[in-house]
Formats: sequence, structure tokens, C-alpha cells
Amino acid sequence: MLFHVEMDVNIPLGFDAEEAARLKAAEKARFQELQRAGTWRHIWRVVGQYANVSIFDVGSNAELHDILMSLPLYPFMTIRVTALCRHPSSLHDDR
Amino acid sequence: MLFHVEMDVNIPLGFDAEEAARLKAAEKARFQELQRAGTWRHIWRVVGQYANVSIFDVGSNAELHDILMSLPLYPFMTIRVTALCRHPSSLHDDR
Amino acid sequence: MLFHVEMDVNIPLGFDAEEAARLKAAEKARFQELQRAGTWRHIWRVVGQYANVSIFDVGSNAELHDILMSLPLYPFMTIRVTALCRHPSSLHDDR
Amino acid sequence: MLFHVEMDVNIPLGFDAEEAARLKAAEKARFQELQRAGTWRHIWRVVGQYANVSIFDVGSNAELHDILMSLPLYPFMTIRVTALCRHPSSLHDDR
Amino acid sequence: MLFHVEMDVNIPLGFDAEEAARLKAAEKARFQELQRAGTWRHIWRVVGQYANVSIFDVGSNAELHDILMSLPLYPFMTIRVTALCRHPSSLHDDR
Amino acid sequence: MLFHVEMDVNIPLGFDAEEAARLKAAEKARFQELQRAGTWRHIWRVVGQYANVSIFDVGSNAELHDILMSLPLYPFMTIRVTALCRHPSSLHDDR
Amino acid sequence: MLFHVEMDVNIPLGFDAEEAARLKAAEKARFQELQRAGTWRHIWRVVGQYANVSIFDVGSNAELHDILMSLPLYPFMTIRVTALCRHPSSLHDDR
Amino acid sequence: MLFHVEMDVNIPLGFDAEEAARLKAAEKARFQELQRAGTWRHIWRVVGQYANVSIFDVGSNAELHDILMSLPLYPFMTIRVTALCRHPSSLHDDR
Amino acid sequence: MLFHVEMDVNIPLGFDAEEAARLKAAEKARFQELQRAGTWRHIWRVVGQYANVSIFDVGSNAELHDILMSLPLYPFMTIRVTALCRHPSSLHDDR
Amino acid sequence: MLFHVEMDVNIPLGFDAEEAARLKAAEKARFQELQRAGTWRHIWRVVGQYANVSIFDVGSNAELHDILMSLPLYPFMTIRVTALCRHPSSLHDDR
Repeated sequence: MLFHVEMDVNIPLGFDAEEAARLKAAEKARFQELQRAGTWRHIWRVVGQYANVSIFDVGSNAELHDILMSLPLYPFMTIRVTALCRHPSSLHDDR
Repeated sequence: MLFHVEMDVNIPLGFDAEEAARLKAAEKARFQELQRAGTWRHIWRVVGQYANVSIFDVGSNAELHDILMSLPLYPFMTIRVTALCRHPSSLHDDR
Repeated sequence: MLFHVEMDVNIPLGFDAEEAARLKAAEKARFQELQRAGTWRHIWRVVGQYANVSIFDVGSNAELHDILMSLPLYPFMTIRVTALCRHPSSLHDDR
Repeated sequence: MLFHVEMDVNIPLGFDAEEAARLKAAEKARFQELQRAGTWRHIWRVVGQYANVSIFDVGSNAELHDILMSLPLYPFMTIRVTALCRHPSSLHDDR
Repeated sequence: MLFHVEMDVNIPLGFDAEEAARLKAAEKARFQELQRAGTWRHIWRVVGQYANVSIFDVGSNAELHDILMSLPLYPFMTIRVTALCRHPSSLHDDR
Repeated sequence: MLFHVEMDVNIPLGFDAEEAARLKAAEKARFQELQRAGTWRHIWRVVGQYANVSIFDVGSNAELHDILMSLPLYPFMTIRVTALCRHPSSLHDDR
Repeated sequence: MLFHVEMDVNIPLGFDAEEAARLKAAEKARFQELQRAGTWRHIWRVVGQYANVSIFDVGSNAELHDILMSLPLYPFMTIRVTALCRHPSSLHDDR
Repeated sequence: MLFHVEMDVNIPLGFDAEEAARLKAAEKARFQELQRAGTWRHIWRVVGQYANVSIFDVGSNAELHDILMSLPLYPFMTIRVTALCRHPSSLHDDR
Repeated sequence: MLFHVEMDVNIPLGFDAEEAARLKAAEKARFQELQRAGTWRHIWRVVGQYANVSIFDVGSNAELHDILMSLPLYPFMTIRVTALCRHPSSLHDDR
Repeated sequence: MLFHVEMDVNIPLGFDAEEAARLKAAEKARFQELQRAGTWRHIWRVVGQYANVSIFDVGSNAELHDILMSLPLYPFMTIRVTALCRHPSSLHDDR
């Protein structure tokens, strides 16, 4: 089941640089784990923003919620979730 | 080069049903042609809306503009375009 | 899987009254069928509006989309969908 | 009498963790007390947000106001209240 | 129980003048009936707008809904409802 | 001359509690003085908000401005002012 | 007593040209009458818009309301009213 | 050449009171200098706000920009600029 | 003197195609006349929209207003005007 | 390939003045380097704002993203990016 998730990241000016680096590394590791598992199916940078557009493939709403809430950078994110489904015109199973 | 395109379709109440069917069939044919060509890389329905979220892969801004303006349902669409690029954490070339 | 759905209904001034009555009766019948099935779990009127707030319990995003798109009054509705999940503090399985 | 209440919770970065834990425990206890009393009839998490959608069943506007203002996490909440009533099509007394 | 209700009236250009006059007269009669009954406690014109701000005193949400939906000019109105309660500093029972 | 005034109060987290209590007491005293004088004609709490909706009866715009700017809690308020006038349908001089 | 009034004029495409010309002439005559009387103290065109920004000097809210509602182009206008007062730093009585 | 300028002033809670007083005095002096020169043609307080609406008469966009950027309270202001021109119906050269 | 002008064009569905073609040709001719004169210094299409972003170089606000109001497609346009000036860091006179 | 970029700069009150001066000098140097290279084709100040409107000419979305993210003042900027293309009516290659 697919969801469109937009994440804007805002780390405040003056936030401890080492802690920020640690959180970003943890975020990247967690992201790659979910990408390898096929859960975080797509991710793109939004040009000019510290933000991404992503597609998640999960078994339930609850699974998506748990994944998002436990992201290392979650406390710095503004998140918008949109439920998606297969488009009837598509020639393949667009995931 | 990737772009995120949101399309909301609004065919007015009372619009001629046959003409609408003709336009939708033309839209579908054009979409599948672009999907086969790899230009219209992804398309998803937004749940509860006559709307889609799409990812285009084009050679230039002008190519994207020409594609969108010539869609059969373009006169009924509200369109939002967002420029994307590859995310640095991604393990593969996310297209 | 639960979704929060807001529906605003707007039948234009001067729309044929008989056709409107027919559509409303069909909408009511369809609603009650889904309510009996446990799919349309809750519905409330918003005070002062021709609008409702509803909770749907469906197996997938696609199921919700198909239900909403086939509602008899769908062409007159503005719809907002929000994915929900169980609240961790709740004493029971809030559906 | 039913009200739809949306609560977004925003505890600032760097807020004392122990105090936050204490407030969350107090909030949970108060919530469960109201849930058992049938006042806080429904609560759902909004996917991807530290936010909930709730349905309250109260005797008056004033009762709802007093309940909301005395929630332990109230100072961290943004709240939206919408008055509801029974939907005429519903087969049961939807509370 | 008090509610703050804002009503913007928009009768389209070209709407039949006689029918409009009839509806306005019916609206005024209904308003005065509710004003005499103490239900429509206050009404004020918003300067420069075909709009009013009103205070209703009703026994329940449902009573308010039924009153608003049956106003002769309801089909031409945009309505916003806000639940109120007595202010703790007030020296009298502000209705 | 009547004005509709909405006041949202936002005292920041961590603001000195004693100073806040002193300001609230001063606000209440000033409010009651104006209420007794018939200037601050109505006040209601907005359910779920630290906010009020008020009706002022003043001799001029300048008088209203001076009253609002000198409220003890003014530095914590967001204020919206709307000019009102008597509604032509009203049976009495609605103040 | 001064008010800042913004007026956006929108005459629909296809509206009878002769009737529009008649209404514009009536509007201009009424404006000049009020300008001569010192009531409509200032008027400016907003660059690129069929809109104006105006300053009215009236004895009461009700007088302003009556003036605005009886403008020949009122049915085509969107109006925003803001109450003003003399600025304490001003060297003269800015009207 | 005329411009409509709205200035909202927001001096944060806890800002040094002496420095604020010094900046306000400097702002007033600069304002009066520009008012005497005929550049800052009009200024009005917005009722209930620490804000003004002003009309500037300048030789160019650049002159207006330089004036606004060098105002002593500029760092505390939110500014909106609208280009104006003479209204064709006006009986005099409305400046 | 430079201005940033955004123009969104919206020709309604069902508008006479021949008249639309005539207006577009007139718009193009007028645009090229102003481009040759150096008044309409830049124009760009916004990707995916029937809209443009333009830079005008005019002698006064009034000149810009007269140009915009007399564009053949003006009745179909939504226009936003922003006053610009030379950037202090620029190496050349950016027009 | 052209992009329209709006940059609003907001350096917080109380930010270290020397560090701000250093960052502004670095921003200016980087801007002029990109201007000389023809990448940052145009820049204008928005009147009354610490903000600019710019036109970039880049080979790809990714190139634009990398340029914007590495601007010395990027952490203080709010950025909006709009993809542009050549306007069909233009007499020259408007860059």
C-alpha cells in the first residue's frame, strides 16, 4: 500500500553541529535499511530545499506511522502524508 | 531530469459526456505512449480525488512544458510542478 | 485500517430538484449498505454545513478510493482524506 | 452533544525530558479517566503526526472548554473544535 | 448554550429579483421569530459586507443545525460556527 | 458605535508565573471597569482556546485603539477588529 | 473618523457593455459627489488591477456601511474595511 | 510616484526597554523629517495593532527601498509595498 | 524603473475559439511592440502553466498601469505586480 | 535551462554582527563568481524587503540544487524555485 510523504527538515541555527551530524548519519542508515527492505521505495530531493518527496510501501497505516515517528530526524521534520493507489491507466504496477 | 507533477482534473458538471469520454481515452493513450517512452516514469491516483501525482523524466524544462500543455485533458487540469534531483543518501539512481 | 474523511457537498443553485432528490436517495442507500457492512463506521453532520465527518474502515487505500469515487453524490463533493491509526493511550481498539 | 476536536502537540526541542515524561503520563491518565467516563468517546492518531483526532460527548460547551483547558499537555497543543450532530441517514445513534 | 455564527450572503448577479425579495422577506420574518424567542440573541451587520455576525442561544448542537439549515437564505450563505462559553472574568451572565 | 474584537492570548512557555498572574489580575480589573462603563459590552470565551470574542461600544476608532493598546495583556495578544453596525431586520437596538 | 477601504471590481466577461458603461458613469458621479463632500477623502488605483485603495472620513460605522452598500458598482465589488486613527508621531491631522 | 506601504511592528517580549525607546525616538525623528519633505505623505494607525498604513511619494523604486531599509525600526517590521497611481475619476491630483 | 509582473491567463472553456485566436494574435503583436521598445524587457513561460513571469522597465507606476490595463488578454488575466530595484551586489546594471 | 528563484533572507535579531558581515561578504563574492560565469543571470532587490528575485541558467536541476545549498547565507534563506522556459512570442532568446 503506497503513501506519498513530504518531509521538510529544519535544524535550528546554533544546534550542536556534532549532534546534528550524528543524527544525520543515523537517519541515513535507517533510510538505507528501509530502502533495502523495499519499504521506502522512492526518495527525491526538492530543488533548493532541505526537503524530500518519498514513496512508502507499507502493510498498514500503523506501520507507516511507526516508521515515521522513529526516524532520527523526526523531531526536526514537518511531514505531510497522502494516501495513494494504483492509477487505472498505468501499464504496470507502479510502485 | 526529474519533475514532480500534481494534476487535479475538474470536468464541469453538465459537460458533454461523449466528448469527455473521447478526451479521457485520448489522455490515456497519450499517457501510455509517454509511459512506454520512459518520460512519464510514475503515476499514482490520490485517494478520494480525481487527481494524480506523477514523476516525469525529461531532457529540459521546455520539453516538460510542451508535454503538459498538449495533454488532451490539460484545459481541465490544475497543475503544480516541482523540480527534483537525486537524493544523496539513496543507494540507487532513483528514477 | 481507518481513515478520516471530510465531505463537503455543494449542489449548484438551479440544479434539477428531482435529479437531486434521486441522487440523495441513492447516496443514502449506498451509505446504509456500507454502514451495515462496517466499512463506513461513523458519520456526523458538521453543524451549519452541508458536510459530514466520517470514519472508514477498509482493507486498503484502493478500496477506500473505489468507495469514494462511486458515491452517487461524488461529483458534488469536496473530499479530504487523512490516514489514522490506533492511539497508544486508548483502552480499547477504537474503531 | 458531540464535538470533533483536533489536537496538535508540539513540545519544543530541548524541553526538559523528565518533565515531558511526567506531563505525558498525566495526560494519559486523564485521557483514560475521561474515556472510561464516556466523555472522550474516540481518539485516533494522525499518521505521521504528533496529533490526534477525537470525538467528545459533553453536556455543554462550557464542559468541553473546562476539559480541554485542564489537559496536562494543553500548553503545548494547538486545538480546533467543530460542533457535530447526528447524521439523518445514520441507522444508529452514532456516538 | 451560545454559538458565534458568521453568515456571508451571496445572491448571484442575475438571480430573479422577485424571488430574491420573497426570500429576504421570509428570512426577515424567520429571524424576528427567533429573535423574539431569545434563540437568535444578537445580530450585527459587518460594515461594507452583505454579512452578519450573530450569537445564538440554543439547547444543543442539533437545534442550531436545524435552525441554520432551514433559513430561507441558507442556499446563498457561507456559514462559520464557533462554540462559545461564559467568560470567567465577566460580571454578569453574558448572553 | 460597535466593534467586534477577537483576542487570542499567547503567554510563552517559561514566562515568569508570578508576573503572568499579576498581568492577568490587572487585565481582569481593567476589563471589569470597562464592562461596568458599558464600553466592553460583551465578552465570550472561545471553546478550547485561550481567546475571547468581544463587542465594544465606543465613541470613535481612536477610543477603541487607546483601550486595546493599554490592556495589560496586550503584548501577548493577537487582535482582529471588525467594524459593525445595527442590522436592519433587528427588532431592537442590538448592542 | 477614518477608514481604509480596498475595493476590487470584477465585472464578469459577457456582461452587457451598455449596462456596464451606465453603472461606471453612475459610480463616477457618486464618487465625485462624495469626494466634494470630503467623505471619500482619498482614492488611488492599484497598479495592474481594476481595484482602488480609498480613505473615507465618516461620522459613524453605519454611515460608511450605507455609503458602500449603495455604490452603483457594489454588486461587482469585493470590499475590505480597516478602521484607522491618527498616528501619534504625525505633525499634522492626517486626513 | 505613490506607493502604499503597510508596516507591522513587532518588538519581541524582553527586548531591552531603553534600546527600544531609543529606536522609537529615532524612528519618530526620521518619520517627521520625511513627512516635512513631503516624501512620507500620509500615515495612519491601524486600530488595535502596532501597525501603520502609509503613502509615500518618491522619485523611484530605489528611493523607496533605501528609505524603508534605513528606518530605525526596520529590523522589527514586516512590510508590504503596493504601487499606486492616480485614479481617473478623481477631481484632484490625489497625493 | 523595473517591475516584476506575473500574469496567469484563464480563457474559460467554451469561449469562442475564433475570438480567442484574434485576441492572442493581438496580444502577441502588442507584446512584440513593447519588447522592441525595451519596455517589456523580459518574458518567460512558467512550466506547466498558461502563465508568464515578466520584467517591465517603465518611467512611472502610471505608465505600467496603462500598459497592463490595455493588453488584449487583460480581461482574462490575474496579475501580481512587485516593485524591483537594482541589487547592490550586481556587477552590472541588471535590466 | 532557466529557473526563477525567490530568496527571502532573515538574519535573527541579536545574531553576531561580525559573523553576519563575514557571511554577507562571502555571499557577495560567490554571487559575483556565478554572475560572471553566466549562471546567476539576473538578480533584483524586492522593494522594501531583504529579498531578491533571481534568474538562474543551469544545465540541470541538480546543478541548481547544489548552487543554492552551498550559498553562504543559505541557512538564513527561504527559497521558492519555479521552472521557466522560453516564451513562444518572444523575439529573442530571453535569458
